[in-house]
Amino acid sequence: MTSTERYPRRAEIIAVGSELLTPFRTDSNSLYITAKLNEIGIEVGAKCVAADIESELSAFLAAALARADLVVLTGGLGPTADDVTREAVAAALGVPLEEDPRLVEGIRMRFAARGLDMPQVNRRQALVLRGAVVLPNPNGTAPGQWLDHGAGHVLLLPGPPREMRPMLERVLAERLAPMSNARVLRRVLKIAGRPESDVEQVAQPVYASWTRWALPVATSILAAPGQIELHFSVRSETPDAGEATLDRAVTEMLAVLGDDVFSTDGRSLEQVVGDLLVARGWKVATAESCTGGLVASRLTNVPGSSAYVERGVVCYSNTSKTDLLGVTSALIEEHGAVSEPVAVAMATGILARAGVDLAVSVTGIAGPGGGTAEKPVGTVVVAAAWANGHRARTFRFLGGREQVRSQSAQSALDLLRRVML
Amino acid sequence: MTSTERYPRRAEIIAVGSELLTPFRTDSNSLYITAKLNEIGIEVGAKCVAADIESELSAFLAAALARADLVVLTGGLGPTADDVTREAVAAALGVPLEEDPRLVEGIRMRFAARGLDMPQVNRRQALVLRGAVVLPNPNGTAPGQWLDHGAGHVLLLPGPPREMRPMLERVLAERLAPMSNARVLRRVLKIAGRPESDVEQVAQPVYASWTRWALPVATSILAAPGQIELHFSVRSETPDAGEATLDRAVTEMLAVLGDDVFSTDGRSLEQVVGDLLVARGWKVATAESCTGGLVASRLTNVPGSSAYVERGVVCYSNTSKTDLLGVTSALIEEHGAVSEPVAVAMATGILARAGVDLAVSVTGIAGPGGGTAEKPVGTVVVAAAWANGHRARTFRFLGGREQVRSQSAQSALDLLRRVML
Repeated sequence: MTSTERYPRRAEIIAVGSELLTPFRTDSNSLYITAKLNEIGIEVGAKCVAADIESELSAFLAAALARADLVVLTGGLGPTADDVTREAVAAALGVPLEEDPRLVEGIRMRFAARGLDMPQVNRRQALVLRGAVVLPNPNGTAPGQWLDHGAGHVLLLPGPPREMRPMLERVLAERLAPMSNARVLRRVLKIAGRPESDVEQVAQPVYASWTRWALPVATSILAAPGQIELHFSVRSETPDAGEATLDRAVTEMLAVLGDDVFSTDGRSLEQVVGDLLVARGWKVATAESCTGGLVASRLTNVPGSSAYVERGVVCYSNTSKTDLLGVTSALIEEHGAVSEPVAVAMATGILARAGVDLAVSVTGIAGPGGGTAEKPVGTVVVAAAWANGHRARTFRFLGGREQVRSQSAQSALDLLRRVML
Repeated sequence: MTSTERYPRRAEIIAVGSELLTPFRTDSNSLYITAKLNEIGIEVGAKCVAADIESELSAFLAAALARADLVVLTGGLGPTADDVTREAVAAALGVPLEEDPRLVEGIRMRFAARGLDMPQVNRRQALVLRGAVVLPNPNGTAPGQWLDHGAGHVLLLPGPPREMRPMLERVLAERLAPMSNARVLRRVLKIAGRPESDVEQVAQPVYASWTRWALPVATSILAAPGQIELHFSVRSETPDAGEATLDRAVTEMLAVLGDDVFSTDGRSLEQVVGDLLVARGWKVATAESCTGGLVASRLTNVPGSSAYVERGVVCYSNTSKTDLLGVTSALIEEHGAVSEPVAVAMATGILARAGVDLAVSVTGIAGPGGGTAEKPVGTVVVAAAWANGHRARTFRFLGGREQVRSQSAQSALDLLRRVML
C-alpha cells in the first residue's frame, strides 16, 4: 500500500468524557479539529461524545473505524481511574498497551521540576499502544498517540485545548500533509464597528459571484460580540492558484468594507494595535472604569507588549478618577461619570501622568444595575488622547454585563487602531 | 407492559445536519435537551452529530437504540431534499411513513395565513411514522413525532431552538414525567491551590465507597489551569433523600480537602472573594504587573463589584511601579521586579494609596521572553496586604503566556480568599 492510498478522505471525531454529557460542558475541541482537517482536504463525516466507560468507548471507536479512515479521539488520557481512552482503543483494535520507560522518566522529570515526586497514578500516562508513535506534549503530562491500523489511522489527543491544539497541528503537518497536495485554503477577514446584518448586506452582492469562479470560493459569516468574521475557503491542488483566488476575493471585499476590516491574516485586534504602536515607536496607557482592566488585560496578553504598554489604571470609584487621573469631581457632577467630557478627561489625564504617546479610556454602565432612562445599561463612552488631539465615541450596547464589557473593550481597542491609521 | 417498565433510564441524542460538521457550527440543542432529561431523572449516555445522509443516520439510530431506551433526534425535519430524518428513522425501525391529511391541511393554512400557496415540497413535512404521535409545532411548519418502539422510545424534534424547546418541554411533561418521580441532582466542588493528581489521590479513597451507598453517588474530576472541579451526581425518586445524600458526600469531601475547596454552590472564585469582601464590609484594590489587569477584570466581572472594588493599577514599567505604588528603584534593583519584597511593597503601596482594607499584587514572568536561569518563565509572586499584615507566595507555573497569566490571576484571587477565611 503506497502512502497516497492511505491518505484519509473521511474523518470522525470522538470526544471522551462523561462531563461532556452534562448540561454544563460542550465539546469545543471538535470545531478546531474540523478546521485543521479541512485545511488539508479531509472532511469530518460524523462526531460523537462518549462517556468514560471503556466498553462503550470501544464500541464507538469500532463503529467509527468501519465508516472512516481517520478517527480522532480527544480526552481520557489523564492519570486517573476514569481516564479509559488508552484501554478502550487497545480493546477495540486488539492491540496491547506497553509501558514506555522514557515516558515514565519524562513525567517524573516534569514533577521534579516543580519539586514534587511523581504520584504512582501518573504511570498510566506512559502506557502506549504497541506500534503507535508517541506524540510529545510540551504543555502537559499526557502524551498523544498516532497508530496506523489496517487502511486507517487512529489519533489519541489530550482533552485540554492548550495541549491538544499544538499536538494536532504537529501530527497533521508531519504525518498527513506530506501525503497529498489537496488543501482547503482559508482567509479570515475580521471586522469591527459594524453590525452583522450591515456586513451581510454589503458583502453578499460581492461574494455571491465567487461560487462561479474557476476555483469557487465558499463564504461564511460568524458573529461574536463586537466582531464579525468573514471566512473564505477554496479547495485546490495547487496552492499558488488557490492563494491567488483568495487574494482576489480579499481585494474585492476590502474595496467595499474598507477600514472596518482590521485583520486579513488572523491577527487579533490587540495584536494589530500592538503592531501599529511598535511601527510608530509609541507607548500606550489605559484608564478603565466599566471594563475593569479588560482593555489592559487584552493589550498585555500579546507577547512583547511590555515594549509598548506603560501602565493602566482601573478607576472604579470617583475618588480614584480624581487621584489617578485628575478628573475633577465638578466635571463628574456636571456631566456624569459616563459622558464624553469625563472620558476625554480620563484619557488626557493618563496620557499626561504616564508620559505616553497615546491613551485610551472607557467609562460606562455594564449593568445589571446603574442604568437610568437617559443612560440605560449598555451606555458606554470610549475616548483616545494623543499629544495634540483626542477623539470620543458613545455607544449603546445590548446584552448582559459580560457582553457589554467585551464590546466596550473591543471598541476601545478599535478606537486605538483607527486613530493610528 | 406497565408504564413504569417503559420509563427510560438512558437517553442518547442525535443532532442531524451537515452544517454541524463544519468548524463554524456547534450542536447546542443537546445541552438544553440534557438539562431537561436530567430534571426527570434520565441520563444522557452518548450523543452524536450525523450528516444529512439517510443511510448513515439510519445506522446511527439503530446503534443508539441498541444502547438506550430513549433516542432524541433534532433537525432534518424541514421540507427540502436534504431533510432526511423521517426517512432514516422509518428505515432504521422498519416502520412505514404515511401522509397525515390533517397535517397537510395545517401546513396549507400556515401558508394561506401569509397569503401564499403551499409549495409541494412542504407535503413531506406531513409524513408520519405509522403509530407515532404527532407533536404540534406552534413556531414552525415541521411537526415533531413521538414513537414507542419495542421497549424504547424515539423522539423527532425540529432543529431550530425556538421550535425544539417548547415541543420538548411539552412532550416530556405529557409523556414521561407522569411515569416517574426520578431526578438527577448534582453538586460541583471547586478547588484552588492543588494539582489534579494531588486532588485525585486525596479524593479517590473518599468517593470510592459512594457507589455502594443506598443512593449511589457518581463522581468526576475536571481540571482547568489553577482550578479543579469535582462533580457529584445522584439519581433519586425523592429529592430530599437525594439532596441529603449529596450533603453527606460534600461533607465527607470537605473533611479531607478543607480550605482548598472554595465553592460548593457553583460560585466562581471571584464571586466567593466578592461575597467575603461584602460580608466584612471591606474594599479591595489591585496592583498587577504580569497579569496586566486580569485580576481586576475578573473581580469587576461580578455584578455589584463596584461596591467593593476601589481601584486597580497595571504597572508594566518600573517607573509606573514607583509612580503609582511608591516601590523604590533601589528595592527593585536589590531583589528584582519579580520578588517577594517587591510584591509586598506593591501590595502595601496600593493599600495605603487607595485607602482600602485589602490589597493584592502580582509580579512575574509570563513569557515567552524575560526568563533567566534563576527566575525562569512562569516564576510568579503574589502578595496580599491588609491593615496589620501581609502574606506573599512564590509560584513556578507551567504553560504558555496565557496559562501563566490565568494561573497567576487565579492564585491572586485565591490568596485574597484565604486571608479572609
